[in-house]
Amino acid sequence: MLYVDVALLPAELEAMPLARFGAVAVIDVLRATTTMVAALENGARGVVPVATPAEAWAWRAAGGPVLLGGERGARRVPGFDLGNSPLEYRRETVAGRLIVLTTTNGTRAFRRVLGAGEAGSNSQEIIAACLRNAQAAARHLWRQAEAAGGDVLLVCAGTDGWFSAEDAYCAAMILECLREHGPLEQGDGARAAARLGAQAADPREELAGSRHGQRLLALGFHQDVEYCAALSVSQVVPRLDSGVLVAAGTPAGAEAGAC
Amino acid sequence: MLYVDVALLPAELEAMPLARFGAVAVIDVLRATTTMVAALENGARGVVPVATPAEAWAWRAAGGPVLLGGERGARRVPGFDLGNSPLEYRRETVAGRLIVLTTTNGTRAFRRVLGAGEAGSNSQEIIAACLRNAQAAARHLWRQAEAAGGDVLLVCAGTDGWFSAEDAYCAAMILECLREHGPLEQGDGARAAARLGAQAADPREELAGSRHGQRLLALGFHQDVEYCAALSVSQVVPRLDSGVLVAAGTPAGAEAGAC
Repeated sequence: MLYVDVALLPAELEAMPLARFGAVAVIDVLRATTTMVAALENGARGVVPVATPAEAWAWRAAGGPVLLGGERGARRVPGFDLGNSPLEYRRETVAGRLIVLTTTNGTRAFRRVLGAGEAGSNSQEIIAACLRNAQAAARHLWRQAEAAGGDVLLVCAGTDGWFSAEDAYCAAMILECLREHGPLEQGDGARAAARLGAQAADPREELAGSRHGQRLLALGFHQDVEYCAALSVSQVVPRLDSGVLVAAGTPAGAEAGAC
Repeated sequence: MLYVDVALLPAELEAMPLARFGAVAVIDVLRATTTMVAALENGARGVVPVATPAEAWAWRAAGGPVLLGGERGARRVPGFDLGNSPLEYRRETVAGRLIVLTTTNGTRAFRRVLGAGEAGSNSQEIIAACLRNAQAAARHLWRQAEAAGGDVLLVCAGTDGWFSAEDAYCAAMILECLREHGPLEQGDGARAAARLGAQAADPREELAGSRHGQRLLALGFHQDVEYCAALSVSQVVPRLDSGVLVAAGTPAGAEAGAC
């Protein structure tokens, strides 16, 4: 029986016994983790999640041939090469490149996972998950937790410190896929997310109906919301390796289908 | 249309624009807010929510004829008159007395509401809600929000910084009662809580199935869980008045029924 829980907000990490979790997924559907999957899918060498634009500039100042990406207030950071729209991370732009990414919620959530406990140690697997790689992420989490003998934690990035419904909905979709692999024992947060998912409409409606989704639509990011809503269409699982997210690769056992 | 949201954890308060909410309810079903309702129902003059045992001792040192109540690790604070079991707050013990209460989650949540913004100002109503007074709390919140022209916020106290399913379930029950008064516009947190409630079993099972409920049952507090699970059986609404929770009184329009 796999124990799985969902942190509905990164603030919960400070209270949770992180060491018990063998595999952790950070979820920021709109849009950071979707962007990470898009970048690696299109051949980026890696994505470095950093907390602030200043940290990103420091990477450039260090002389590396990096692309700087990210947003503040959903808009590209002035002077950066790329914003936080996954649609910008096209193959011709990102193939072979290392991307340093800073976003308000998603990349900060990674830094909180890394700062909160055992995370980042060799024994703990940390990945980026979104709706587009939900099935592949679940498969990867299941295998890693099995190998490490630990539990699974899904961390919802939220929006500016608020709970975000679309991240909890994504957690529910991953829970559904995990359940295809075997029975789950769920913590309170996982049960809440699962119930939210069980009553969900289709992914597009869930995203468009969330506070953050409405904000992005108001800013004109209709195509982004559409792109982020596609369920389990990618096999790419970004996994942290020495602070850099790299593609875990397409597992041999990948099959088609929602889970 | 009344806008209503649910903070699934007190940590969310730091990000939320508290000033927009005309009426705020703190929810800690197991057991602080249930204990507050029990104390006032049994004639206590008031309940002062304080964050730490040291603050409670300071009240006694000041010479007031107060009763000290509260827990750490679900057990009575050594030297205190009362623990955090609502069953201890009997009429013969508490009638006419002022109680200074400190609990790990519930009273701290009050202090966070008070510390986070406009809360505590004359214009914002802050109450204690639990399953036992869900209907009465909803009625009070609706009227206060209508009078103040503001929105309603339900704050789940959680457990030791973790999300607690039983508090979100209680929020869902209050949302259901609010809906009897008129249409609601729900934030992401409110939508998540409502979905959790819509798929709930009966209150006893929800409490017994939660992480905190299981912990209390393991410690032998079966009667407490039973008592806390009774839905809308009390008309008492504890409201903050200059830092002291006092009974708002039985509203004239109180009717029987779950909502």
